[in-house]
Amino acid sequence: MKNGKPITLGEFELIRQIQQQAGTAEHLLLGIGDDCAIQRQATDQELLISTDLLIEGVHFDLRWTSLEDLGRKAVAVNLSDIAAMGGTPLSLFLGVGCPQRLSSDDLQQFSRGFLSEAAKYSAVLAGGDTCRSPGPLLISVTVQGCCARGRAIRRSGAAVGDAIYVSGTLGDSALALQQLQRGEVPLRELASRHHTPQARIALGAQLAKQRLASAMLDVSDGLLGDLGHIADQSSVGAVIELNRLPLSTAFRAVLAQNPQLIDLALTGGEDYELLFTSKAQDLEQQADLSPGVTRIGSITAAAGIQCRWPDQSLYQCERGGFDHFA
Amino acid sequence: MKNGKPITLGEFELIRQIQQQAGTAEHLLLGIGDDCAIQRQATDQELLISTDLLIEGVHFDLRWTSLEDLGRKAVAVNLSDIAAMGGTPLSLFLGVGCPQRLSSDDLQQFSRGFLSEAAKYSAVLAGGDTCRSPGPLLISVTVQGCCARGRAIRRSGAAVGDAIYVSGTLGDSALALQQLQRGEVPLRELASRHHTPQARIALGAQLAKQRLASAMLDVSDGLLGDLGHIADQSSVGAVIELNRLPLSTAFRAVLAQNPQLIDLALTGGEDYELLFTSKAQDLEQQADLSPGVTRIGSITAAAGIQCRWPDQSLYQCERGGFDHFA
Repeated sequence: MKNGKPITLGEFELIRQIQQQAGTAEHLLLGIGDDCAIQRQATDQELLISTDLLIEGVHFDLRWTSLEDLGRKAVAVNLSDIAAMGGTPLSLFLGVGCPQRLSSDDLQQFSRGFLSEAAKYSAVLAGGDTCRSPGPLLISVTVQGCCARGRAIRRSGAAVGDAIYVSGTLGDSALALQQLQRGEVPLRELASRHHTPQARIALGAQLAKQRLASAMLDVSDGLLGDLGHIADQSSVGAVIELNRLPLSTAFRAVLAQNPQLIDLALTGGEDYELLFTSKAQDLEQQADLSPGVTRIGSITAAAGIQCRWPDQSLYQCERGGFDHFA
Repeated sequence: MKNGKPITLGEFELIRQIQQQAGTAEHLLLGIGDDCAIQRQATDQELLISTDLLIEGVHFDLRWTSLEDLGRKAVAVNLSDIAAMGGTPLSLFLGVGCPQRLSSDDLQQFSRGFLSEAAKYSAVLAGGDTCRSPGPLLISVTVQGCCARGRAIRRSGAAVGDAIYVSGTLGDSALALQQLQRGEVPLRELASRHHTPQARIALGAQLAKQRLASAMLDVSDGLLGDLGHIADQSSVGAVIELNRLPLSTAFRAVLAQNPQLIDLALTGGEDYELLFTSKAQDLEQQADLSPGVTRIGSITAAAGIQCRWPDQSLYQCERGGFDHFA
């Protein structure tokens, strides 16, 4: 990055290059290059839309993230919001505010990561905006997806007695980030959870199709904070059984040295796993869910989120969830 | 702004406040507060989507723009892209990266301007993302609109012999900005064109409904650059008759002192007027078009854009259109 040439492409030339690589899709009547993209609509489908900002120094650090990985992550974390509704991705809209220090090679690496990750989920880049940034590298992504009418899984549907499930493992991304910030080199399996998270599109769509989830979101701010959103919007409480938290082998190895790190699994954030509630109490056994899910607790009538050890003692987490304005 | 309190609202509290003011709309099944917004679809309509970044120090300067006007402008310049397709606004998605120096009062002023401008065009804020910015204030807006199937007006439809029209007047915004940058105080009618431009939604929709335009866009980068986009995408050229450029009284007064300022009308940008081509040669007479339109030239088979004086001499514009990466 530091040795790259400064950007020499004009804005329109850059857009044209990305446009040529952006691909097409059946739903997209007109892609990049006009005032708006034009999309076909389908009345048996509902449209899902989400928008995210990624700011250098807040959401990512180019000292340890490559531009290509950043492009991948920008797609995955946004598609994760589509997964969290049980939807299927359609289109992406990308804004890039680019500081002078980045070269056109850097931008092309970012584009390569962005477009290849989008293609993995059959999402097409349908529009964008590029400009100079006088400060940090800025990325805004808006994603559109769809789901069958009435099937989107909201945060507000959890009911007392529902089991709480989470996909994959928790805390890996936060642990990798903590190690990076300390100048340590995380194990590859931890680092990849931080740099190139996966959007759980297939799992979310399956849960929606089979009507298995009563409420769902993706864990971006940390398990406790995000479960709090489900609890608030469903007007319920929850109990988490700490010994059930799904943790990777790499995470368990570090946790054995420092038990306080359990907080990273509870509040670390950037897991991008699906957190959902369900009437079904045995989804853990369901072999066709990929990635597998773990039952970590249940929804209660009493407000608040309790974390409980097997001996019924309560655990008070030290770290709050991440709040950008706290 | 300088004397305001630092932000004390948490991120979620801020989102909740905006959410309460954001309003609802028939097409919006679920607004702010979940992973995604959910929208109804309609097969007799096509969806129009556009995204824009606004960065402090690049697109606006808080020394001479109030937060409330900035909120208004962020809506108007994005809706202008919907107008440019002949569409009707539906939803807005807002990302704000907020520097520490801004107070919660500042953010509320921004929200007030944003939401009141959106309401003016019957557009509803349907989703967003807020976070800290370590540098400039950052605003990303994605807008959705709709138009009757097959009626969106693209840039690529201009044909040889079509007349070229532009709505309103050109150069006012660029002249105001030039005066502000020199420390002068622009006339109020010029300043308002810069601070609070209007999106020509009604005019665009009428042109689409009556099939009056063969190609259209909004003038954001400057007349010559934007006409160049129509010419490129339609594989044609154009002649502009300089004495026909629609100029405001305030602009003409300054132009009389300095004839070189004609370049601001040709390349200044941020006019947010509609530039379109039409088979009809007499739209200037059509009284029900609001704002009125002016015929400024015609589409030619010969490539390139020529600017011609009444004596047929050609004018070579000194300034290029605005290119963020030039």
